[in-house]
Amino acid sequence: MSETRQVINREDAEPPFFVGVDLGGTNIKVGVVDDRGRSLVRRSVPTHSHLGPEDGARRMGEAVLDAIAEVGVEPADVGRVGLGTPGTMDIPAGMMLEPHNLPGWENFPVRDRVSHHCRLPVSYANDAGAAAFGEFWVGSGEAFDSMVMLTLGTGIGGGIIVDGRSIDGEHSHGAECGHVIIDMRPDARVCPCGQPGHLEGYAGAVAIISRTEEALAAGRKSQLNDRVAAGEQITPLLLNELAEQGDELSLEIIMQTAEYLGVGIVTLMHTIDPDGVVLGGAMTFGGHETNLGRRFLARVKQEVQQRAFPVLRDTTVIDFARLGGDAGYIGAAGIARSDYHR
Amino acid sequence: MSETRQVINREDAEPPFFVGVDLGGTNIKVGVVDDRGRSLVRRSVPTHSHLGPEDGARRMGEAVLDAIAEVGVEPADVGRVGLGTPGTMDIPAGMMLEPHNLPGWENFPVRDRVSHHCRLPVSYANDAGAAAFGEFWVGSGEAFDSMVMLTLGTGIGGGIIVDGRSIDGEHSHGAECGHVIIDMRPDARVCPCGQPGHLEGYAGAVAIISRTEEALAAGRKSQLNDRVAAGEQITPLLLNELAEQGDELSLEIIMQTAEYLGVGIVTLMHTIDPDGVVLGGAMTFGGHETNLGRRFLARVKQEVQQRAFPVLRDTTVIDFARLGGDAGYIGAAGIARSDYHR
Repeated sequence: MSETRQVINREDAEPPFFVGVDLGGTNIKVGVVDDRGRSLVRRSVPTHSHLGPEDGARRMGEAVLDAIAEVGVEPADVGRVGLGTPGTMDIPAGMMLEPHNLPGWENFPVRDRVSHHCRLPVSYANDAGAAAFGEFWVGSGEAFDSMVMLTLGTGIGGGIIVDGRSIDGEHSHGAECGHVIIDMRPDARVCPCGQPGHLEGYAGAVAIISRTEEALAAGRKSQLNDRVAAGEQITPLLLNELAEQGDELSLEIIMQTAEYLGVGIVTLMHTIDPDGVVLGGAMTFGGHETNLGRRFLARVKQEVQQRAFPVLRDTTVIDFARLGGDAGYIGAAGIARSDYHR
Repeated sequence: MSETRQVINREDAEPPFFVGVDLGGTNIKVGVVDDRGRSLVRRSVPTHSHLGPEDGARRMGEAVLDAIAEVGVEPADVGRVGLGTPGTMDIPAGMMLEPHNLPGWENFPVRDRVSHHCRLPVSYANDAGAAAFGEFWVGSGEAFDSMVMLTLGTGIGGGIIVDGRSIDGEHSHGAECGHVIIDMRPDARVCPCGQPGHLEGYAGAVAIISRTEEALAAGRKSQLNDRVAAGEQITPLLLNELAEQGDELSLEIIMQTAEYLGVGIVTLMHTIDPDGVVLGGAMTFGGHETNLGRRFLARVKQEVQQRAFPVLRDTTVIDFARLGGDAGYIGAAGIARSDYHR
């Protein structure tokens, strides 16, 4: 979806400018946005995480300067840089603590090192929090005063925006929406984090694969059996493909995932009562573009309809995210902008 | 506990002054506090809900003026009045919508009617949100930057404070902490609100009584059987009494309640990541003052220890509230003060 998002020209843009950096395990996305959240340029460079965090910080700083140069803006016209990284982290300290998908980057003062290399002030955020802020600023949540976002991928990330600010928490563990408990039983499914009963333990990609394997082991008929026999791995992408071809089990697993998400969303609605809940990430089954994506969203909404307080089920918007892979850097830039204008 | 809280003298107080009003189904509590949250006077008048909301608003307004007069403060020295009422409500509109424990008070513009009768500006809040704000301001949460409070009574109310502000939600349904889902199974216990699996459906007073009745019906031995045979009703107070006398079932029901609360608290910690979680209300089994209260809190903490993220379980404070029945009016006054100083 990120390809559909337009990049505007320098002369149409409104200063000051903000640079967003979205650090992932594989790629670093960098973009320059204007004061209204419109992208002037975006680029992606490999993370090369094995080269270590200081090298990464240097290349992030260079990518920021390259992006600014490419768009023809003076560094003096850049208000601030925003940086989103995976957790765990200490946001006020600007530190990465134990990022599971960036081994060797532990306890690294990433905010200040990136700032050093680009010689610009840097605001720091959780990557899922940054994506939520991007959707809140100029994406699916742009009409909202408050918003919850779930980022559906290998894990389930979260972001909560209230009063225009991200709820980071006192220990940088706010909005860990994948880790709300939806099943308190001690023998509930175990989350990749090690705890029983979390939303991610039912609806994250790892859980989807486990649930599928269990159904096959229990003798369920499915085209999946042939594909596995032919040496393929079970992935959400394969389930997506087979569900679209009418495979019952694949569809059932996906729709059950939507139900679990609905349960977690109701808990978040009863806690935050936001204007809307936005679903982003890779595991949205094509989003509005596909029949399967639309059925998935409808099933999430159905669960919310059944379980939420009447006034909330009638008014709270549940929708897919709109910025795709751009949400992270745009949101990081938006958080930088909030700090700049404060 | 409210009796232990000191009232300060007029000459020791720091202006401006704020008046808090806590409207309940039986009583209205009114108090005058100074700019540092210290009470100068507090009084309780019967609600007489059958006389209707306009009569109630008139008497609330009069009680505000009486309290001001009693303490010897000029109305001009009063910055603002704060009013907390039960939901459901529309906080920005100042309206009570469908308050279940005040039949006949539906769709009543309580904020503006009280303001009319006392001729002072009034800030409006949910009663549980006001209690949370009181504890956050000058109670168990006074050292916190953010806080979650659960008010344990017939139902389970909630309040969430982040960045010094209450999370009211977009439809005045924020912080409905009793209605987070802890058991997603369709055949989970049903909450008094009608939905399955809510925290209140397991740990509210109604649920505690049902769980006890079910255990007795299943043939469990307990002193409760004799008391029920003698015509007594099962209440949390009776469980409290018998648990302190060593009755196993009573103690088991209370400790199981603590476990359920621990599950809900972990969900709230993973969503908000506050400095602390505070437990108030009538159903705290004596709080720090009794052995049973301390065991109850220890069991809540044990569940949190087992289930929360490591950094949170090591740092997040879990404690009883400190202001007792004063929390509501003090917090309402504190919310008025925030609006006044904004």
